[in-house]
Amino acid sequence: MVAVHIINGPNLNLLGVREPQTYGSLTLAAIEQRLVELGARLGADVTCRQSNVEGELVEFIHEAGLAGAGIVLNAAAYTHTSIALRDAIKAVDAVAIEVHLSNVHAREAFRHHSTIAPVCAGVICGFGPVSYELALDAIVRILRQRHGADGN
Amino acid sequence: MVAVHIINGPNLNLLGVREPQTYGSLTLAAIEQRLVELGARLGADVTCRQSNVEGELVEFIHEAGLAGAGIVLNAAAYTHTSIALRDAIKAVDAVAIEVHLSNVHAREAFRHHSTIAPVCAGVICGFGPVSYELALDAIVRILRQRHGADGN
Amino acid sequence: MVAVHIINGPNLNLLGVREPQTYGSLTLAAIEQRLVELGARLGADVTCRQSNVEGELVEFIHEAGLAGAGIVLNAAAYTHTSIALRDAIKAVDAVAIEVHLSNVHAREAFRHHSTIAPVCAGVICGFGPVSYELALDAIVRILRQRHGADGN
Amino acid sequence: MVAVHIINGPNLNLLGVREPQTYGSLTLAAIEQRLVELGARLGADVTCRQSNVEGELVEFIHEAGLAGAGIVLNAAAYTHTSIALRDAIKAVDAVAIEVHLSNVHAREAFRHHSTIAPVCAGVICGFGPVSYELALDAIVRILRQRHGADGN
Amino acid sequence: MVAVHIINGPNLNLLGVREPQTYGSLTLAAIEQRLVELGARLGADVTCRQSNVEGELVEFIHEAGLAGAGIVLNAAAYTHTSIALRDAIKAVDAVAIEVHLSNVHAREAFRHHSTIAPVCAGVICGFGPVSYELALDAIVRILRQRHGADGN
Amino acid sequence: MVAVHIINGPNLNLLGVREPQTYGSLTLAAIEQRLVELGARLGADVTCRQSNVEGELVEFIHEAGLAGAGIVLNAAAYTHTSIALRDAIKAVDAVAIEVHLSNVHAREAFRHHSTIAPVCAGVICGFGPVSYELALDAIVRILRQRHGADGN
Amino acid sequence: MVAVHIINGPNLNLLGVREPQTYGSLTLAAIEQRLVELGARLGADVTCRQSNVEGELVEFIHEAGLAGAGIVLNAAAYTHTSIALRDAIKAVDAVAIEVHLSNVHAREAFRHHSTIAPVCAGVICGFGPVSYELALDAIVRILRQRHGADGN
Amino acid sequence: MVAVHIINGPNLNLLGVREPQTYGSLTLAAIEQRLVELGARLGADVTCRQSNVEGELVEFIHEAGLAGAGIVLNAAAYTHTSIALRDAIKAVDAVAIEVHLSNVHAREAFRHHSTIAPVCAGVICGFGPVSYELALDAIVRILRQRHGADGN
Amino acid sequence: MVAVHIINGPNLNLLGVREPQTYGSLTLAAIEQRLVELGARLGADVTCRQSNVEGELVEFIHEAGLAGAGIVLNAAAYTHTSIALRDAIKAVDAVAIEVHLSNVHAREAFRHHSTIAPVCAGVICGFGPVSYELALDAIVRILRQRHGADGN
Amino acid sequence: MVAVHIINGPNLNLLGVREPQTYGSLTLAAIEQRLVELGARLGADVTCRQSNVEGELVEFIHEAGLAGAGIVLNAAAYTHTSIALRDAIKAVDAVAIEVHLSNVHAREAFRHHSTIAPVCAGVICGFGPVSYELALDAIVRILRQRHGADGN
Amino acid sequence: MVAVHIINGPNLNLLGVREPQTYGSLTLAAIEQRLVELGARLGADVTCRQSNVEGELVEFIHEAGLAGAGIVLNAAAYTHTSIALRDAIKAVDAVAIEVHLSNVHAREAFRHHSTIAPVCAGVICGFGPVSYELALDAIVRILRQRHGADGN
Amino acid sequence: MVAVHIINGPNLNLLGVREPQTYGSLTLAAIEQRLVELGARLGADVTCRQSNVEGELVEFIHEAGLAGAGIVLNAAAYTHTSIALRDAIKAVDAVAIEVHLSNVHAREAFRHHSTIAPVCAGVICGFGPVSYELALDAIVRILRQRHGADGN
Repeated sequence: MVAVHIINGPNLNLLGVREPQTYGSLTLAAIEQRLVELGARLGADVTCRQSNVEGELVEFIHEAGLAGAGIVLNAAAYTHTSIALRDAIKAVDAVAIEVHLSNVHAREAFRHHSTIAPVCAGVICGFGPVSYELALDAIVRILRQRHGADGN
Repeated sequence: MVAVHIINGPNLNLLGVREPQTYGSLTLAAIEQRLVELGARLGADVTCRQSNVEGELVEFIHEAGLAGAGIVLNAAAYTHTSIALRDAIKAVDAVAIEVHLSNVHAREAFRHHSTIAPVCAGVICGFGPVSYELALDAIVRILRQRHGADGN
Repeated sequence: MVAVHIINGPNLNLLGVREPQTYGSLTLAAIEQRLVELGARLGADVTCRQSNVEGELVEFIHEAGLAGAGIVLNAAAYTHTSIALRDAIKAVDAVAIEVHLSNVHAREAFRHHSTIAPVCAGVICGFGPVSYELALDAIVRILRQRHGADGN
Repeated sequence: MVAVHIINGPNLNLLGVREPQTYGSLTLAAIEQRLVELGARLGADVTCRQSNVEGELVEFIHEAGLAGAGIVLNAAAYTHTSIALRDAIKAVDAVAIEVHLSNVHAREAFRHHSTIAPVCAGVICGFGPVSYELALDAIVRILRQRHGADGN
Repeated sequence: MVAVHIINGPNLNLLGVREPQTYGSLTLAAIEQRLVELGARLGADVTCRQSNVEGELVEFIHEAGLAGAGIVLNAAAYTHTSIALRDAIKAVDAVAIEVHLSNVHAREAFRHHSTIAPVCAGVICGFGPVSYELALDAIVRILRQRHGADGN
Repeated sequence: MVAVHIINGPNLNLLGVREPQTYGSLTLAAIEQRLVELGARLGADVTCRQSNVEGELVEFIHEAGLAGAGIVLNAAAYTHTSIALRDAIKAVDAVAIEVHLSNVHAREAFRHHSTIAPVCAGVICGFGPVSYELALDAIVRILRQRHGADGN
Repeated sequence: MVAVHIINGPNLNLLGVREPQTYGSLTLAAIEQRLVELGARLGADVTCRQSNVEGELVEFIHEAGLAGAGIVLNAAAYTHTSIALRDAIKAVDAVAIEVHLSNVHAREAFRHHSTIAPVCAGVICGFGPVSYELALDAIVRILRQRHGADGN
Repeated sequence: MVAVHIINGPNLNLLGVREPQTYGSLTLAAIEQRLVELGARLGADVTCRQSNVEGELVEFIHEAGLAGAGIVLNAAAYTHTSIALRDAIKAVDAVAIEVHLSNVHAREAFRHHSTIAPVCAGVICGFGPVSYELALDAIVRILRQRHGADGN
Repeated sequence: MVAVHIINGPNLNLLGVREPQTYGSLTLAAIEQRLVELGARLGADVTCRQSNVEGELVEFIHEAGLAGAGIVLNAAAYTHTSIALRDAIKAVDAVAIEVHLSNVHAREAFRHHSTIAPVCAGVICGFGPVSYELALDAIVRILRQRHGADGN
Repeated sequence: MVAVHIINGPNLNLLGVREPQTYGSLTLAAIEQRLVELGARLGADVTCRQSNVEGELVEFIHEAGLAGAGIVLNAAAYTHTSIALRDAIKAVDAVAIEVHLSNVHAREAFRHHSTIAPVCAGVICGFGPVSYELALDAIVRILRQRHGADGN
Repeated sequence: MVAVHIINGPNLNLLGVREPQTYGSLTLAAIEQRLVELGARLGADVTCRQSNVEGELVEFIHEAGLAGAGIVLNAAAYTHTSIALRDAIKAVDAVAIEVHLSNVHAREAFRHHSTIAPVCAGVICGFGPVSYELALDAIVRILRQRHGADGN
Repeated sequence: MVAVHIINGPNLNLLGVREPQTYGSLTLAAIEQRLVELGARLGADVTCRQSNVEGELVEFIHEAGLAGAGIVLNAAAYTHTSIALRDAIKAVDAVAIEVHLSNVHAREAFRHHSTIAPVCAGVICGFGPVSYELALDAIVRILRQRHGADGN
């Protein structure tokens, strides 16, 4: 079993509550439930966290990294400006994948740049809740490969 | 009765405590008291919140928006960089007015741009505590008009 | 009694004539009439001027300033580029408030910057004709306070 | 018959008087005369205006638009900076074509950008007085098509 | 008789096939047919070429220029970045007119700049298939004038 | 069965031939073979194309779009500058996903921007050949949903 | 005798009326009177014009240029943005000197750039009313030299 | 005795835990212990705080400033973007020194700019834990000098 | 014997045919002939290719690199924008020298930047056909040194 | 008597030796001789220095300033980049006037900006050797006024 | 004993002579004397150099580096633009610390950037003459540590 | 015989002394010796100069130019900022070639731009000491051609 932390940032606690036409009618809890189940099928122990506070997200990353877990991170609004989240991923040397529900490149120009992406393994955006599923699939493959490479 | 949340951001808890020559000698509590009283005269139920933490301000906006309240927001330093606050206002589809005590356009260049203003109904700055009063006056008119437009 | 000049810039003579869905169906004359009445209630003598010519607006500001009147200025398109209007306000050391009917920060990027705002007391935008009323309210308070501070 | 206003901006009153090697030896009056005649052949009532004052050009556009006329506009130096002319065209919802005698893209960099072009139907530049003739041809076609589309 | 090459760039082979609401229902073949006929009326021998490959467009320009033909060029997407097309026009010292179906200045910012325009005689955009007709009219006049100036 | 075209751009024909330490030792042919097999399992008919010529990639997109196929596009170097590819996707209104083997955001600054992403459904990068697999998985889901939404 | 037109732009009609600590207590009329007298001593016929309207300044330049007079131009606020004034000087091929009372390079950044300077013979700034005197001295020398060079 | 608050920002709680090759093997606790001891030798009462939350750092600065303590601030990632921390220092008019373990000017370009430095007395970076020691030495000198200057 | 491919980009097929005053009267064929002869004297087997198509140049580089040949590359207009050519050189790990006939730094600003230079061994520009000769001289020296360093 | 140092920077030692068509045939020595004579007439003791070395110009400014002399400075190429010269003028609190032979605003863009102008009393450019004469005239007036203001 | 060269750049020879209110009344000689004494206490042999000439500072760095001395460098005005000083430090692989008397980040924007800092061990600014003392303290520690690491 | 001056700028006196892995183990003296010998073979009288002082390099260029010699100039760090060197070359109208040992385009961005290149005949970089040899070869050809063209 590998461990994966799904970490969601600001305003994502409202998923499924408001703007269903944009983000779908699935609540964050429902998406998380699906990911735990998908994780189980893929052999991954999935933990889900959400916070609107940048500093708490820093701490979630610390915890994930120190526990040796991979990270699927939707930093939402903080994606575009947060050096603290970038430094956190680097500080704990975590394998992280940046995800977004929407295609950020089709939105306002200030959403086209990510401060975090350069320290991630990869980026997946634009597929709604499926973005998380693809990321979970990908990170499990990476973590498996690393564990294999490490000798076991 | 309409509901209005007055939400203040970082460092505004120090109002009246330091730099009275710049910001006047009124404490934030005194300003809030005045706004509650003005709200009563205008037929608005006024709630006041303050936080130095961006993520808590996000949550104050969520609460206001989900409660159907209008928002008078002085995001202070976060005004110029916070995408999270912008997304919060949009996520709950709130009527919000951006206010500032000082005329931000007469200060440093980095205070001339607001990330939040584009999702607000309007902006009022430069009138000290009177900025809040004008905003309260304006938002009550907007909320009334909307309620009227909605049928009652 | 304090004196206030309401000065409107290019294209505002068309208010209420075209694009009512955007700017409402009130003509400029009707708005001015309301402001004169509101001024009377607030103890202010209100004079209204409009021109499409930048240099005439410069002269309206000279006249207002030399007469000791406060200025509520909607410079419209000239807001974003006119150094002449900025210099005019400074030359006569007038108390001025910049107003806009629409929330300029929610429109094209070139409308986000104001050349004039740094020499104004404050800025109010986004509230349609109510923007002028709030500004009239605010400038009367400022002029009163100045007169009081001057000793009478 | 459709109506077309040919509106010329600053310095164009000197056409044919100075710099004939650059702009040809035709005076503005001669060009206007030709356009009136061409208009007659095309079934268009052509009116010609010129001013060096930006605000007067704003008013010429108002007049044209309120009269339902199409506009062929050579705003000359104001092309590159005037938001007032742009707003004027939009305010009266006029069909306008931007023209230039010279190919502005082959001149100084500050002439490559037009503030007005985005609210015009199209742009024609580089053909000397022929630019106006092509524009007159084009706008008559557009106005005819609109009239046809409107039902008559 | 003068010779004119109408050269169309990437994606224009789809004209009339897709997005008729934007670009009209005329196919490129139909437009080219019309231009050949118009050319005949104007005394011009019209040749039509299209390619999606930048380097082939370079060669079409070479061929036109070496044959002494004028060029009506809709370089489409390559307009905004292609130095090769610019150099090609200059290398063969051709008379060229840049055309566009849509008003590129009313579209995304990256379409406002043309690398090619500075080496063209002029630019015409925004009139749909009529843009080509106006350009054909203009280029025939220019070529005639040159031939006249050359002595016959 | 849905149809998917995998379209690869410049230099990708060298995959597995050079720089195996960076891009792995799989040749493009081997990757394509895997994707055809994965497509078969997912119920998708997979077609693979590669070209080093921008204009040929434009034509591959035309073909895919006109055939109603989804597109998994690795435009490689053209990703960052090609307006022609962007226009091609839009012209045929195709469902496309942008993929990259490497995490482009961890490389040179000029690779952080994509001209194509805004017209794609989403973007996946950084997972080596797995990027294609995730994209194939995602596009099949989107095409299925569309087909379902269309009525059958 | 040579002819020189002293042309002053927006807000300069207030010279000596307001802000004497910055611009001195001399009125514009007094400065003009001095320049007429200095001109007489230098053998120059001095004419003085002032306007707050950009388009009128364009016309003053036309008049000066067509009369063969040299121009001492303080375009004030229009210095930094006016392409129309630049085009006017070029259109009449006038000898012009740009002057400023204050040292514009020691003021706000937007005053450091002049649109007009490139078409002037030279620039003099920072010497208060003496700036005009130096410019008058200089332009008389230039005009004399030209007249001499022309043969008389 | 003077009072000094050592305030550390995001990710610094991990010092000595991860990346010892970059930041050394000293934990934050060990560094803080050393600084308390050095403070004792220098006659300074040293208090140490750390938070990953920007808003909590704002509050630590408020507390230090209101207590009349000097501040040694390593704001880490927030250094480069936080206007709230800058405003906090100014609001309590504290003597603050910005420190960094690494030489930020030898790292990514986004670390070269500090939003906070302009309101600090000085900046020290690049000396690992010694940066704090030098800053403590410096701030004690400044505070002593101020106390002396104040009269006691 | 070492192998060198001389690869020429867009418009260079016209050398000697047009603009002889700028580029000399030597045709590309004549220059290539000279280089083959010079190569023979220097002990280098010289192959010459030219294409106007970016993607074909990519393939010429692939062929050269896979054959172990050094590359003298005049990418002409593609020099300034082509990431594909840059990636091609890197993909086959070729020794390449960028050459230009003219001194690109003395021409338009957009010719001052090269996308390709950073992956080349060096750059030579400004010497007309002699640029190729110098580059051939240099690359033979580099290839010899490498072969020597490799063991023989 | 007031004292004035005329300080000339790099390449000005070649005046009159090369490029007479641009800079006239007067040598620097001849210009300096004229200025000494003009100074005598104006009651100023004129000293002339020239160096091609930035650091020596710094020292010339120190010497002038410490001697209480006014400075007429043509820093030539160093005008546009030298912070050292700016700091030197400020350090000795000298009255300085920036001069140029040519109108720098009509030359390359990098000559439009002056690092030194903001610490000078004024700027004069474009009048050839007459620029120095005007500056000498102006600085004598300023120094006289200061001496008068100081009491004697 | 370790060796340290204190190298001061342009205008610093005036320290204590002019502007004592800004830079204190200590002369450079007095500061140097103190540093020699402090060096003696710290076990460092301190040499002091000053020049206003960039190229001489380059040579001072060469001498220091070739002698194995550490460098405390206040490059003053050259800090912000000098690539030569940066290259000098790198060429001799010296341990250098950048110091400034004032807090450069609180001054003009062009003083916020340092060309030299990226090749220094660290930066200290804002503490007046104490900046040198802190730097001397720091560099002695670094040189000791290096000597220790080299084996004693 | 033609004359060529090889002029080297800052830090190049250290060639072969430090960083041999980067710049080779040849000292500047050895390189100069080789160039003198190569010059002899090519029929050129070669003079070698080096200085770390920008102003002295200006004077070396003056001397070369006034003597009618060609210049091979490695201005090193001054390449990227020196307007004085550019002006020097132009002032003496010298034939100059810019050379660099390393490929500056593969280094830091601030080394990609040359202030000097636009006034040179050409540029050669990236070939170590061979860069000078190629430049000597090239400049002898140019000087010969000029002499021939001048009539002998």
